Amino acid sequence: MKNLIVASTSTIYGDSYLGYLKQEITCLFKDATTVLFIPYARPGGITYDEYTAKAAHVFEEFGKKLVGIHTYANPKDAILKAEGIFTGGGNTFVLLKTLYQHDLLAVLREQIFQGLSYLGTSAGSNICGVSINNTNDMPIVYPPSFKAMGILPFNINPHYLDPVPNSKHMGETRETRIKEFHSQSSIPVVGLREGSWIRVNGERCILKGAHTARIFQQEKEPFELPTESEISFH
Amino acid sequence: MKNLIVASTSTIYGDSYLGYLKQEITCLFKDATTVLFIPYARPGGITYDEYTAKAAHVFEEFGKKLVGIHTYANPKDAILKAEGIFTGGGNTFVLLKTLYQHDLLAVLREQIFQGLSYLGTSAGSNICGVSINNTNDMPIVYPPSFKAMGILPFNINPHYLDPVPNSKHMGETRETRIKEFHSQSSIPVVGLREGSWIRVNGERCILKGAHTARIFQQEKEPFELPTESEISFH
Repeated sequence: MKNLIVASTSTIYGDSYLGYLKQEITCLFKDATTVLFIPYARPGGITYDEYTAKAAHVFEEFGKKLVGIHTYANPKDAILKAEGIFTGGGNTFVLLKTLYQHDLLAVLREQIFQGLSYLGTSAGSNICGVSINNTNDMPIVYPPSFKAMGILPFNINPHYLDPVPNSKHMGETRETRIKEFHSQSSIPVVGLREGSWIRVNGERCILKGAHTARIFQQEKEPFELPTESEISFH
Repeated sequence: MKNLIVASTSTIYGDSYLGYLKQEITCLFKDATTVLFIPYARPGGITYDEYTAKAAHVFEEFGKKLVGIHTYANPKDAILKAEGIFTGGGNTFVLLKTLYQHDLLAVLREQIFQGLSYLGTSAGSNICGVSINNTNDMPIVYPPSFKAMGILPFNINPHYLDPVPNSKHMGETRETRIKEFHSQSSIPVVGLREGSWIRVNGERCILKGAHTARIFQQEKEPFELPTESEISFH
């Protein structure tokens, strides 16, 4: 039975790292004393050690020990023995490429399907979708595939942004980008605003947090899904 | 002798399509009566015909005929016989994948090195760099490589955006994303603001337009390059 928090962002404006998720995280990892951290996304190019130290500091406040996967000789084994997993944000391409390099995607997927508790933020959430085709990140490395874990039967667009009224910038809006995606693919996309997350319990995906989510489907008008609703595409 | 306009955007706020580049384009294509249009980037998922009609309308005002490459039975031959080429913006991944699919990248590169006049905007500019690693676009399709034409000895970040002061959005700034790239690569990146373009004459790349450009190099502080300056990395 799947048990995940798939969050748009680790940090909301004016709050501390993971602060707004404290209660949810404590509940998700209630049976774990140690949580395995996957720091591969390296936000801003920081080292695995620096990133792990930052996250471990906050997990300590939550009463949990957090250990970086890079400190294990055998990362596959670390996943198989983990009591819970947190994959932090950063660059989705770097994260996915590194997971493929270490041949970890299949084992991570299998463990999550078996019930391993998982927390993802931003890039760590993107990899829970069918593919990373809807990441906002810059493609700074070339992964062997854009295929992700497919824990969710849809893709995530984290940090979802509404069009800025009266903007003078001519770059595409997020909605235009996702519309472009649907000229190429039929995978639904959930635009998840900062402060929103998806609570996955078994096959149920419930939208949580302060905001509605924007749901995009091929050849349909996008719509707003209220918080506390189940995400489905009937 | 290379002869290109590599522009950040096709359209600046409040102006018509290609309006701000009218004089430059007329000069670039002064010896051409017909220009070949590459509409593969399909902005917003529009069809090749729709996109070509939009661009041809403006080229007509410039006194040039514009013909879409998709109307030729043999696109490679169309490039070999072209008097000038314009590659429009849209999705860089879709553009590059389509060029690879039709096996056009090498012939296009070769013709440009031989002196074929070329205009690129946005995605059409990204493909002039070493790779598309610094596109802002969503990776909605998976190209067989991120390697681009390497007409320029650096990469382009078009639609370059400065950090928004007091923004409450927690997604990465453009500068953070490019810094992440330099944790993985030593290719310099030119952040090209909307309204800026690069005029390539032989081996000289001159920054043109109203703005400075932001130059990013690995392990160096980024700096602002004044307009009308030569882009170099000594």
